[in-house]
Amino acid sequence: MGRDTGRVAFLGPEGTFTEEALLASAAHGDLAPFPYPSIQDVLIAVAEGEAELGLVPIENSLEGSVVLTLDLLSSGFDELEIAREITHPIRHQLIARRELQLEEITKVVSIPIAYGQCRTFIREHLANVEHEATDSTAEAVRRISRVDRPWVAIGTRLAADLYECAVVRDDIEDSLENRTRFVYVSRTSAPQDLDASYKTSIVCGIAADQPGALLLILSEFAHRFVNLTKIESRPSKQGLGQYIFFLDLEGRRSDPPIDQALKCLACKLPWVKVLGSYPT
Amino acid sequence: MGRDTGRVAFLGPEGTFTEEALLASAAHGDLAPFPYPSIQDVLIAVAEGEAELGLVPIENSLEGSVVLTLDLLSSGFDELEIAREITHPIRHQLIARRELQLEEITKVVSIPIAYGQCRTFIREHLANVEHEATDSTAEAVRRISRVDRPWVAIGTRLAADLYECAVVRDDIEDSLENRTRFVYVSRTSAPQDLDASYKTSIVCGIAADQPGALLLILSEFAHRFVNLTKIESRPSKQGLGQYIFFLDLEGRRSDPPIDQALKCLACKLPWVKVLGSYPT
Repeated sequence: MGRDTGRVAFLGPEGTFTEEALLASAAHGDLAPFPYPSIQDVLIAVAEGEAELGLVPIENSLEGSVVLTLDLLSSGFDELEIAREITHPIRHQLIARRELQLEEITKVVSIPIAYGQCRTFIREHLANVEHEATDSTAEAVRRISRVDRPWVAIGTRLAADLYECAVVRDDIEDSLENRTRFVYVSRTSAPQDLDASYKTSIVCGIAADQPGALLLILSEFAHRFVNLTKIESRPSKQGLGQYIFFLDLEGRRSDPPIDQALKCLACKLPWVKVLGSYPT
Repeated sequence: MGRDTGRVAFLGPEGTFTEEALLASAAHGDLAPFPYPSIQDVLIAVAEGEAELGLVPIENSLEGSVVLTLDLLSSGFDELEIAREITHPIRHQLIARRELQLEEITKVVSIPIAYGQCRTFIREHLANVEHEATDSTAEAVRRISRVDRPWVAIGTRLAADLYECAVVRDDIEDSLENRTRFVYVSRTSAPQDLDASYKTSIVCGIAADQPGALLLILSEFAHRFVNLTKIESRPSKQGLGQYIFFLDLEGRRSDPPIDQALKCLACKLPWVKVLGSYPT
């Protein structure tokens, strides 16, 4: 399926939050959604032309950056660009094979992160109920769908539909602030959308003997009135004392202030890479 | 046990990487180690005087910051300070109830993160072997120790000893760069160690209408020649466009340049909190 119109790769299996975000955004147009088992597999599928677009998580409001995505994009996949970002609310559903009472439940199946994000509900209603861990929210729902026991999974509404299960309780997460930012990657720059507001993501390295480098980086943007919406340092894998910085800037790569700042940085730093400039 | 000499709380259960780091550092002296089920429970135990010290993970070299620890320390627990940091290598062991050949194995039990960090080994030696997820590395080892089947767990050497299991293969992780930074928290400032090098961790908020604030923060340190070893922005839970920044500085809080910079920041920003100043 889908090879005629092209494919959009997403972090699977089917029924994950990534697929839920994909379907909610509809930014992939006619492309046929196709699940891949890991973030790396999604990026490879796009890089090798098996898919036109790929959708991967990049940051969660409660858990922080998805370091794997940042590291893969910064250290390879030079043919890929971030083409668009979308933000999707993370809502956890309590799912069972058939309607049941909370008192009947004997096991909760979920990924550890989701379980941790529903502590208040679990303490109140499912204290002392056994917890079984899985690899993905979708896998948790698949698991309980196949066993005729009073077990529940924590997962997406999409997975509940997919495996023909019932949502026993809506929105059991502790925090309504739980959101994940996903990015679409593609091999080619998207045509410019003149009405949209844009963000530009860059990553750069500094040398071990450049202690003022961060200030230098920020000054290039600040004195051109370019706002930052994110900054994060990570130790470089090249050695102790070397860092790389991820920055998100408000604006387009082609805006003269951003373009000039990037040219100045390219002269002063060991390396600078633009991960993408995209509508937000 | 241990209430006579005092207690050091750690993120349990017994046999975790946190306990392994605790035992390797020996920074807790005579205090008796005691496992707690969550990071929050460790901090509460120290804050309420049930434990003298607490040890929690704060950053992993591959996975990034432990956002839960940062958020808990920045938004509450004002009576606690970071008293020391330690860095511990993360080495994954393949563990079985008794010695066995790799070909015999029918199931791998592990936390999803550890499984993801051993992909190369698994692809080479355990492709197509079933994976069962658990909540902690220690729980994985406990699980396989109780079943007389050719199952393996991915976990610590400490857990292998604890559950009287065999290490079938050493160090099966993909990356030798895998390290976790842990911090000891306490209710009181530790006595100054005049010979050690120190780090000072701070967190501060900026207002939505302070676009140059990050540059302002960094300038206060840069023009006093204070080096930063980490910077990370996170969206504030107060509202869109508001950020908080975590910074690690080289030096002691009492060093005049750091002391002066913090006083200047306290005047210019909505809030600044020192999480601790500690030997490293």
